[in-house]
Amino acid sequence: MAVYTAVTAAELAVFLTRYDVGEAQSFKGIAEGVQNSNYLLETTRGRYILTLYEHLVDLQALPWFLALTTHLADKGLPVPRPIIDRNGQALQMLNGRPAALIEFVSGVSVTEPDAAQAEACGEALGRLHMAVADFGPERENNLGQAHWPAMAKRCGPGVSTIDAALPALIAQGVATTRDWPDTLPRATVHSDLFPDNVLMLGGRVTGLIDFYFACTDLIGFDYAVTHAAWCFSSDGRTYFAERAAGLSRGYAHTRGLTADEMAALPLLGVGAALRFTLTRTHDWLHTPADALVTRKDPMAFARRMAWYAGATPAMVLGA
Amino acid sequence: MAVYTAVTAAELAVFLTRYDVGEAQSFKGIAEGVQNSNYLLETTRGRYILTLYEHLVDLQALPWFLALTTHLADKGLPVPRPIIDRNGQALQMLNGRPAALIEFVSGVSVTEPDAAQAEACGEALGRLHMAVADFGPERENNLGQAHWPAMAKRCGPGVSTIDAALPALIAQGVATTRDWPDTLPRATVHSDLFPDNVLMLGGRVTGLIDFYFACTDLIGFDYAVTHAAWCFSSDGRTYFAERAAGLSRGYAHTRGLTADEMAALPLLGVGAALRFTLTRTHDWLHTPADALVTRKDPMAFARRMAWYAGATPAMVLGA
Repeated sequence: MAVYTAVTAAELAVFLTRYDVGEAQSFKGIAEGVQNSNYLLETTRGRYILTLYEHLVDLQALPWFLALTTHLADKGLPVPRPIIDRNGQALQMLNGRPAALIEFVSGVSVTEPDAAQAEACGEALGRLHMAVADFGPERENNLGQAHWPAMAKRCGPGVSTIDAALPALIAQGVATTRDWPDTLPRATVHSDLFPDNVLMLGGRVTGLIDFYFACTDLIGFDYAVTHAAWCFSSDGRTYFAERAAGLSRGYAHTRGLTADEMAALPLLGVGAALRFTLTRTHDWLHTPADALVTRKDPMAFARRMAWYAGATPAMVLGA
Repeated sequence: MAVYTAVTAAELAVFLTRYDVGEAQSFKGIAEGVQNSNYLLETTRGRYILTLYEHLVDLQALPWFLALTTHLADKGLPVPRPIIDRNGQALQMLNGRPAALIEFVSGVSVTEPDAAQAEACGEALGRLHMAVADFGPERENNLGQAHWPAMAKRCGPGVSTIDAALPALIAQGVATTRDWPDTLPRATVHSDLFPDNVLMLGGRVTGLIDFYFACTDLIGFDYAVTHAAWCFSSDGRTYFAERAAGLSRGYAHTRGLTADEMAALPLLGVGAALRFTLTRTHDWLHTPADALVTRKDPMAFARRMAWYAGATPAMVLGA
């Protein structure tokens, strides 16, 4: 939640001459995304988000991210479209940072989704998984199953200082996910579709945002990430089966899980919860005290991991 | 530059039922103001800023600030109007914080004003000083001349660690401003009209914002603060006489300085520069390293103070 790189009105005016978007009418830094500097820009022609990419995102992959979101917008998905300049370029440099001007979409993120909102999310997730069928370029998931043993090791000593049960939970998660269902269908997936990355108006999804963890991975894994993000209380102590039922109902409208994916859901869920347990544990132990970022409790996802380890496919489906 | 208090979509929806402003279409925390949490809200009816007041502002004075900005908006000044709820109230409580919904105004702050922009600012400042003639309630300037000796003392030891010349510059400033022109005209003044608090489109002022330092003080002091904020390079090393000429030309269109105010300009300038030197020095020495706020160099205003100490009224007027 911060603006790391300042952009003055004069710098903005020069930058906008590259585009056919009119002149600035309003320009405000927004406290959104921990990885980038974001500005809400209103011009005489419309509204946009100006993003300056900080070192935290995978800068090498920026052209891939922008190609993906352009592809999805072309397919009619509610994904903010990168704006191209007069030379057809979306990726720019501004004040020493890679930058892109992106379409603004209305909508508000829900904090406590109800079943109907989870259903709308599931429907949008299925549309996304269908729309990438002809998106060719791949990107490895740097936070995927192959990396979990090394990520667990990198957390280092001190994991038990967070919670006495955490080292064993992580070790169990890593052991369980060694036998990974690698033969399930793969595609480009969002891999971070938390409620804050879904903009809604009433029951309708108006925006799928923040594709900066998108990658090529198991489609069922993306479903499990979304399930883990949407179907529990934030502390991971309470499971909301009615949200899970909404999610699977919505997903069935647009893509639907295969029988093999359904059977693998508990294992995929352990993996999804482990991925966030690992990154949160690492960040908890290695984020400097003066960082602008709020640390998130790893136990919230370790508890989900334990839930998935004891769940049946029907329970994950909310049946 | 931060959002200190989170507001969820559900909390916002409940809050908005107090008003006749429609429903939320978009809601984003903005990185503006170091004292408050600010959100840019778009509803089905219009656009607003939702401000939650943190402990850093003078909470006792909130009704006064809101009454003042309402008064100024009523007079046709480009000041964002506080929105009243169905019971006629502007000041609310939200998530444990005093809060207000305020009209959104377009415009962008200039970083390096030109003479025409300084003239537009001067014109707006004069209109502001005229429009408060019938605004009765007073508020003491807690950072005014009477407080400078104590503020200098509160900086404590360590001032010389910022710059070897700084202790003497502060002592001189305090000594010089002991003989303060207290008989000059007083009114409600903004007292913090830096370029970031003036929104402009092209050469036109579209918004005067951030009245949270407004108070009752010498009108000429407010002119001097604006002069110090607009007419130097940010490091205080370069004086831009053409901006000063623009500022005084614009001000003359709407209110104009009295002969006594003009004669006192160098002394008022020393005071204005001293006020910011003192607060910046204090913040520099007492802001914890992990604070979200960027410390500002006190020497930038100490240099201005030295400039005013050697200036004539004509120089301050940019003649």
